[in-house]
Amino acid sequence: MKAVRLHAYDERPVVEDVPDPRISGPFDVIVEIGGSGLCRTDLHIVEGQWAEKTGVSLPYTLGHENAGWVREVGPAVTNVAPGDTVILHPLVSCGLCRSCRAGDDMHCGNSRFPGIDSDGGMAEYLVTGARSVVKLDPSLQPVDVAALADAGLTAYHAAKKAIPLLYPGTFCAVVGSGGLGHIGIQCLAALTAAEIIVVDRSTAALELAKQLGAHHTVAATADPVPEVLQLTDGQGAHVVLDFVGEKGTEAQGVRMLRRAGSYFVVGYGGAVNIPTIDIISTEINVVGNLVGTYNDLDELMTLAAQGKVRLHTRTYPLDAAGSAMEDLDGGRLQGRGILVPAGR
Amino acid sequence: MKAVRLHAYDERPVVEDVPDPRISGPFDVIVEIGGSGLCRTDLHIVEGQWAEKTGVSLPYTLGHENAGWVREVGPAVTNVAPGDTVILHPLVSCGLCRSCRAGDDMHCGNSRFPGIDSDGGMAEYLVTGARSVVKLDPSLQPVDVAALADAGLTAYHAAKKAIPLLYPGTFCAVVGSGGLGHIGIQCLAALTAAEIIVVDRSTAALELAKQLGAHHTVAATADPVPEVLQLTDGQGAHVVLDFVGEKGTEAQGVRMLRRAGSYFVVGYGGAVNIPTIDIISTEINVVGNLVGTYNDLDELMTLAAQGKVRLHTRTYPLDAAGSAMEDLDGGRLQGRGILVPAGR
Amino acid sequence: MKAVRLHAYDERPVVEDVPDPRISGPFDVIVEIGGSGLCRTDLHIVEGQWAEKTGVSLPYTLGHENAGWVREVGPAVTNVAPGDTVILHPLVSCGLCRSCRAGDDMHCGNSRFPGIDSDGGMAEYLVTGARSVVKLDPSLQPVDVAALADAGLTAYHAAKKAIPLLYPGTFCAVVGSGGLGHIGIQCLAALTAAEIIVVDRSTAALELAKQLGAHHTVAATADPVPEVLQLTDGQGAHVVLDFVGEKGTEAQGVRMLRRAGSYFVVGYGGAVNIPTIDIISTEINVVGNLVGTYNDLDELMTLAAQGKVRLHTRTYPLDAAGSAMEDLDGGRLQGRGILVPAGR
Amino acid sequence: MKAVRLHAYDERPVVEDVPDPRISGPFDVIVEIGGSGLCRTDLHIVEGQWAEKTGVSLPYTLGHENAGWVREVGPAVTNVAPGDTVILHPLVSCGLCRSCRAGDDMHCGNSRFPGIDSDGGMAEYLVTGARSVVKLDPSLQPVDVAALADAGLTAYHAAKKAIPLLYPGTFCAVVGSGGLGHIGIQCLAALTAAEIIVVDRSTAALELAKQLGAHHTVAATADPVPEVLQLTDGQGAHVVLDFVGEKGTEAQGVRMLRRAGSYFVVGYGGAVNIPTIDIISTEINVVGNLVGTYNDLDELMTLAAQGKVRLHTRTYPLDAAGSAMEDLDGGRLQGRGILVPAGR
Repeated sequence: MKAVRLHAYDERPVVEDVPDPRISGPFDVIVEIGGSGLCRTDLHIVEGQWAEKTGVSLPYTLGHENAGWVREVGPAVTNVAPGDTVILHPLVSCGLCRSCRAGDDMHCGNSRFPGIDSDGGMAEYLVTGARSVVKLDPSLQPVDVAALADAGLTAYHAAKKAIPLLYPGTFCAVVGSGGLGHIGIQCLAALTAAEIIVVDRSTAALELAKQLGAHHTVAATADPVPEVLQLTDGQGAHVVLDFVGEKGTEAQGVRMLRRAGSYFVVGYGGAVNIPTIDIISTEINVVGNLVGTYNDLDELMTLAAQGKVRLHTRTYPLDAAGSAMEDLDGGRLQGRGILVPAGR
Repeated sequence: MKAVRLHAYDERPVVEDVPDPRISGPFDVIVEIGGSGLCRTDLHIVEGQWAEKTGVSLPYTLGHENAGWVREVGPAVTNVAPGDTVILHPLVSCGLCRSCRAGDDMHCGNSRFPGIDSDGGMAEYLVTGARSVVKLDPSLQPVDVAALADAGLTAYHAAKKAIPLLYPGTFCAVVGSGGLGHIGIQCLAALTAAEIIVVDRSTAALELAKQLGAHHTVAATADPVPEVLQLTDGQGAHVVLDFVGEKGTEAQGVRMLRRAGSYFVVGYGGAVNIPTIDIISTEINVVGNLVGTYNDLDELMTLAAQGKVRLHTRTYPLDAAGSAMEDLDGGRLQGRGILVPAGR
Repeated sequence: MKAVRLHAYDERPVVEDVPDPRISGPFDVIVEIGGSGLCRTDLHIVEGQWAEKTGVSLPYTLGHENAGWVREVGPAVTNVAPGDTVILHPLVSCGLCRSCRAGDDMHCGNSRFPGIDSDGGMAEYLVTGARSVVKLDPSLQPVDVAALADAGLTAYHAAKKAIPLLYPGTFCAVVGSGGLGHIGIQCLAALTAAEIIVVDRSTAALELAKQLGAHHTVAATADPVPEVLQLTDGQGAHVVLDFVGEKGTEAQGVRMLRRAGSYFVVGYGGAVNIPTIDIISTEINVVGNLVGTYNDLDELMTLAAQGKVRLHTRTYPLDAAGSAMEDLDGGRLQGRGILVPAGR
Repeated sequence: MKAVRLHAYDERPVVEDVPDPRISGPFDVIVEIGGSGLCRTDLHIVEGQWAEKTGVSLPYTLGHENAGWVREVGPAVTNVAPGDTVILHPLVSCGLCRSCRAGDDMHCGNSRFPGIDSDGGMAEYLVTGARSVVKLDPSLQPVDVAALADAGLTAYHAAKKAIPLLYPGTFCAVVGSGGLGHIGIQCLAALTAAEIIVVDRSTAALELAKQLGAHHTVAATADPVPEVLQLTDGQGAHVVLDFVGEKGTEAQGVRMLRRAGSYFVVGYGGAVNIPTIDIISTEINVVGNLVGTYNDLDELMTLAAQGKVRLHTRTYPLDAAGSAMEDLDGGRLQGRGILVPAGR
């Protein structure tokens, strides 16, 4: 089969022929890829930023946001059958540790992460596990939802954790309306009656945010905090979802909070730095957010099938992986890039 | 009446005669003080550290941890009567804002704080509000519980928020076993089956911690993190309660956490500084903690009456306020100092 | 002033002149009534069904769902001023008991209930307490929201308690789409992504339900349970909100549940009767629901101001209270009847 | 191997030789039984009460509360190895359905239940699944904890669900201090500071309850409700855990509740029958309770290893299964009967 393979760091991945994956364990599932999302993390992988953390051996296949059709299953698989349309939870988890037994797949102590530390989905086929496949509603196509597998799932997970804090009359500030943020806005609009204030540097992103449910938008050209405070009766937001997490949003996000508010970190790159007296005197919280659970992904697929969450995408054939990466790196990619192997 | 009054910053407060307080509002309550806790914050007030924040006019009476007997009540007071033994919630809250209506007295937007921004309880009498008085069980004496009003309440509040995270088999690291920490340990032992690991520089404090329910103690002479990791299967604690919050415990406390763990900030003076990638990749939380609610104080008094929480105290007559402060400042005060006006 | 007064049970209330109410306590608030909802409970009061429970002395003024404008306030009132537009929480609570201090106004141990056990709002003026008044957004008129004060608040409270159970992909069955039910449907649609299945005997009620957000409607002419099971993959609903609670819906509602489901009782008149083996083998819950909290009412007003919750009403002048009651009793009243004293 | 087999309903099971179980699936685990609890349900099975519900084919092996040592594992098992000491969660669950993915093993849609619907643990060996085995602390012996696998797990699960309701100052009434109840009392004492009131007909049971942590005991010879009300300031208990659920405790348990209280059904045989007006006017809840989750069992084993939960047991050799059953049926069995195959 064809696959997008990384042979050396700081070199462009190549599209080449590799053997088809084969079932080796009782719970293995082989999926014919219908769409594989391209993500800024893929650029970072190529740059070698993840080399040490994952210890992955080169060459290997990229692609960690995948959806497609089940082609073959191991002998113990009972939840899907060949032909089923599926989206893939990014982790292949063990199902036996305390975290898995509590539903917190993302904290599994024995997981692997296709596309990050083993062969991923920028290929015609991918091997994953029975615990990672979520069956799709007939109305959903792999190419349309693939990027919800990781970016969307992370945004949904953060928004869902914030729901109990966002009763009617509250304010939620969303910092960054890009790949994750524009999903987060849709999730908030679907699941709460909070007033959504979106902060971004890009006018186009703010325009899109409004169409997706933002009640207020704030241009982040200058310091956006005063405007957020003004929009929130001078008190600040009850929840700040920071999808950027670097270049100053970490400090701004905290300053946007009201007493007893919660700052949700989703994006990364910078650092949170807060005097402890400020943390205790206002009793604020800093909440970390990773990718969501299997059930979170199932719920997000329900929202997608209901038309409440839509991705903005641009498709490329698998052979064009290189140009897709250049478009992403060069800022020429509007919406999410999706690689589509030849096929259906 | 006699009162401990601050006339100028950086000068020792004096004990002098002032007029008795009088009922002026329908919900006022005048309390004859049976015990008023002395706290490091009192030293900071004298040093002028709070001058700008509170804007209090000098001279005024110190003392923000108070218990005693109701002497007189305003015409609309129905919950206590003269003669009742009471402990005082530190805030006099409005009862009408959203926070008060949700039970979160400490986030009241219109509160005053006797001893901090108005006359406090290092005096024979104090005027507070009906919303601040908690009736005491007959087994409890004001002098024995006064310091639970603020220090103890803060420790209880933090421990209570941690309960849902501390199921059997979890580890809770307590950093600092002093005035607040030794109450926190007792609350954890009363309300959870978690294994309690106490970290402190003082051998005496660690000894006391063991008697109060700590399962493990770690001397903080060198970096205590490796020993905490060793005691927690190499994974770290599920919850860290940091009663110090300065001089390096902020960084150590975060390093003591396991994946999905929560670092509770109670003490202050330093700063939390964490790269956002570390916050999201392990999905940890930083949780601010202020003083507790009125109902929290009522619950803490139940634990005190059950004998599950005991304060270690040393009493001084009101006239000896100066020596008490010198003892505290000079590190010669074991346990909590309590000023006791002449009387019962 | 004019007021609708009940002089004897089983006799029609009369509209007569009574003295204007006067401020007697520091927290009293006198409200000029802009709308007072008429409710089936008023008919039951006239029939004497509540006589023993409330022990109210006749004659007295009816009307327990009230909104209007503040006319005069007691000396200790700080949260509203004459001229403010307000809706009234149905209870005048004490603010000092454990329930009030936890925000659960409806469990106050020392409350009174205007219109039920003391003079109500079918009059030009009503005296209530500072703790009961919620300021209205300028876009809202008393006549439009008055019936949200009790009926709407109860429906909101139940829906809000169900939110954590209603993640995307769940089913919520609403039994009864009348005065409370049609508010409940709007709250569910505003606050969850659950699929809403409405069960009612009336075709008109089901039509309205669809317009308000119901995804499926089931005519309750025959046993509706099979159709609900069919709409829920044969498993039943995750939550059933029963706004009827009599005439068989109690048994049907429980049969509509899936494993681990929750049956919310809101309406009353019948009885819940379930073998304990059925309760434990499926681990279901029966959840009681009373009127909501003060903060609940504030949140519901936010939904009303956002246009997400609208009442269907018909207004009558105060003088026409008798005909309004006859219309309600005779089934000729579509939507909620609102009495409007002459005025603005 | 030897096994206790049921050949016909209403006939005594026989101890006979059957083939040893064999590994057939990748996740199978064969356990050498160290202790198998005898339970009233076993008597009901023999009487045929479960015949229709389970559809099990006779003959088969009884025993649904099991602990022992791993003897052999299937090729995909990674969490235990031969020689490990283990207790068995009663269900063999699928790990793939929504309930399993949320940690709610007991609501698995595809489970089997050894000893109930397939061969159980009153034998030398039992075959279960990798998802059912919990490794034991070296301090725990299978024979001592076997009966915690089902009876104890159910009691722990109910107590754990009640914790958030049982803050200091609350009352928990425990109805029935038998096999499940005496575990429930220990769990409450370990995990809350609530005052525990135990109601039972047996003086011996009440004596034991006191030793295990009950603060008050009430003899249920006459109607126990007035005494419970008296012990709870006339208001009733915040939580009632009913481990009987028949013969009148269903009605008494509800009458023991205070406003906003919760009645937990654990035992069964009777029926809950409450007018809907009583449910809504006091806003009470009825909470069903089934056996606990896998993680619950792991937590309960922690409490056992900490010495906070102890079972009262009497052991029998496997050959004496018949006499053990007669002792249980005849009321001659104090504590829990445990069958112990010859061995270690």
